[in-house]
Amino acid sequence: MSSTQGKPIQCTAAVAYAPGKPLSVEQIIVDPPKAHEVRIKITNTAICHTDAYTLSGSDPEGAFPCILGHEGAGIVESVGPDVDTVKVGDHVIALYTAECAKCKFCKSGKTNLCGSVRATQGKGVMPDGTTRFHNLKGEPLLHFMGCSTFSEYTVVADVSVVAIDPTAPLDKVCLLGCGVTTGYGAAIKTANVQKGDTVAVFGAGTVGLSVVQGAKAREASRIIVVDINDDKKKWSFDFGATDFVNPLKDLEEGETIVSKLVEMTDGGLDFTFDCTGNVKVMRDALEACHKGWGQSIIIGVAAAGQEISTRPFQLVTGRVWKGSAFGGVKGRSEMGGLIKDYQQGKLKVDEFVTHVRPFNEINQGFEDLHHGDCLRTVLNF
Amino acid sequence: MSSTQGKPIQCTAAVAYAPGKPLSVEQIIVDPPKAHEVRIKITNTAICHTDAYTLSGSDPEGAFPCILGHEGAGIVESVGPDVDTVKVGDHVIALYTAECAKCKFCKSGKTNLCGSVRATQGKGVMPDGTTRFHNLKGEPLLHFMGCSTFSEYTVVADVSVVAIDPTAPLDKVCLLGCGVTTGYGAAIKTANVQKGDTVAVFGAGTVGLSVVQGAKAREASRIIVVDINDDKKKWSFDFGATDFVNPLKDLEEGETIVSKLVEMTDGGLDFTFDCTGNVKVMRDALEACHKGWGQSIIIGVAAAGQEISTRPFQLVTGRVWKGSAFGGVKGRSEMGGLIKDYQQGKLKVDEFVTHVRPFNEINQGFEDLHHGDCLRTVLNF
Repeated sequence: MSSTQGKPIQCTAAVAYAPGKPLSVEQIIVDPPKAHEVRIKITNTAICHTDAYTLSGSDPEGAFPCILGHEGAGIVESVGPDVDTVKVGDHVIALYTAECAKCKFCKSGKTNLCGSVRATQGKGVMPDGTTRFHNLKGEPLLHFMGCSTFSEYTVVADVSVVAIDPTAPLDKVCLLGCGVTTGYGAAIKTANVQKGDTVAVFGAGTVGLSVVQGAKAREASRIIVVDINDDKKKWSFDFGATDFVNPLKDLEEGETIVSKLVEMTDGGLDFTFDCTGNVKVMRDALEACHKGWGQSIIIGVAAAGQEISTRPFQLVTGRVWKGSAFGGVKGRSEMGGLIKDYQQGKLKVDEFVTHVRPFNEINQGFEDLHHGDCLRTVLNF
Repeated sequence: MSSTQGKPIQCTAAVAYAPGKPLSVEQIIVDPPKAHEVRIKITNTAICHTDAYTLSGSDPEGAFPCILGHEGAGIVESVGPDVDTVKVGDHVIALYTAECAKCKFCKSGKTNLCGSVRATQGKGVMPDGTTRFHNLKGEPLLHFMGCSTFSEYTVVADVSVVAIDPTAPLDKVCLLGCGVTTGYGAAIKTANVQKGDTVAVFGAGTVGLSVVQGAKAREASRIIVVDINDDKKKWSFDFGATDFVNPLKDLEEGETIVSKLVEMTDGGLDFTFDCTGNVKVMRDALEACHKGWGQSIIIGVAAAGQEISTRPFQLVTGRVWKGSAFGGVKGRSEMGGLIKDYQQGKLKVDEFVTHVRPFNEINQGFEDLHHGDCLRTVLNF
């Protein structure tokens, strides 16, 4: 039993007090976990575009003040009553997509979208409707995506955490908490790419490059990365792309990115992936699919109020439009396999860590995201 | 060998000279079939909404003057050189979705959208680029959907016709040339509805009611028909629906058809089908799907320029948007099975024939389509 068990812990966290403002790195209080809750000492967290999206104020459901962060790993400090999913000392990854194994969704065998903590998670509170965070003035601070990894200690639902092999380096596998898993899973689970298939990936960030790795693992015959930033070209090839197209530079007169891709692949792609969140790109991704069977998978998060559209003829002639959240991966039952793929060298993770910073440089970490040379900034506590 | 073989035939046809005008029932000349072509004596043809759509002028690809009609059956009168798919005297159904068994599409195993005659079919000509029809003034008349069944004799590509059991009544099974197959196939092939699934069908015409039959054949637990015409209620139940909702009458204050369906099915449907061609209905059909796995299948043909739209979040949270053409059925290899299902009483066809007219009443037949008491008008030569 740890000496802190059952007691509030004072620790460092980055508080988002208001949209559009820098995070405030300060001391906060983290209450002990209640029943079916787990308190984690976060060792490492990365910064994902979704954190930046909510911090910007563009997310209509973003509620402040809160503790952001959802791509983190650490060690279980203590558990509340009735927790049997993890124990003190376990190395863990926080899961923004829970897995209770009991709800209609989990039992369907058709989706990874567990419904158990969905409603409260969306409101920034624990399943009992309260928060475990408050600042030194006593003001409550909300949770975020069921994780809140921008705090040295956090409390999550027992269905929102998975224990992993303790030999896996937490400062790397924290990326499996979102970006890498989201892209890799979209390719190997949601799309279930097969040997010889042709694939196009729009947007070569951590998610897109992880789609590339998934497609490569499945021996896709063609993996075309589409990105408007030529700095992404080298990475794309390093991760397994066979082609790179920059729509701002590589199109001839009268060509569109759709016509270019259709021409490159003799009729269109078997699978396309949107990793940009741009609804116009989502349409291009769909329309670049091969008639009769091409599937387009939306991964990116669009800005509030944005809609996708196309002519229904695109679907009637056999294209399929679908989406993927957390790569279709069930966090608790399938994370172990991803860790193993990583340990066996089948899944690149270390390569995404382009920047490492101490936690108190978190605001600079958000700046890093805007630069073409950054895939992920990992913060160390 | 028939006495007409190799010679032009003069016969009755309904010529569409211009959009928005009644068809002209007159004598025309039908040339003999060339290589890989088949001349059919049409015994029966039904009128489908797609004929009316093109005749109205709304179809931007509609070319005039032409011989419409694509839901027809008859007997092979003669064949051109190199035809081995059917022989003189065969009872046949014309196929607007060809099956060559040799092209990239046919060999993919993933779609019924054969590419062999696609380009010329879309232009209203035979694969050699010419037409087999002209009027008595010598003016050429275009083909339509590779079928042109509104003529006592027609010429089709050998890949666009299938021989059937000669004991099947042609005045009924002509409906398998489009509507019945389109709906039934969408349920059992495209959607592949399974026992216990919940299904909603928007639009209770021949296509929609055939989706209902397909869902019933698969033992769907709930089959909800949505239609704004209460006259469709009895038919819906006759064909297997468990519920009927009229959005103009059956919604409470503050309810939408989407919220109503989601509430009726504890979260949404496993499968929804648009059989209306209305893009707003297509959106409702998608959004009434269950999060995590619901699939919406577009069957209806939208008006030119119309687009479907939704928030991408609908797809990211697991709904799938797809389409179906001719029910995903491969006409030449799978029509025999449908005929058998019909003969064994598993597939209702006769029940769709609400009106029968002699061919020269074809313009009244188009009028019938606008009345709620009409599913199909079958014309007899």
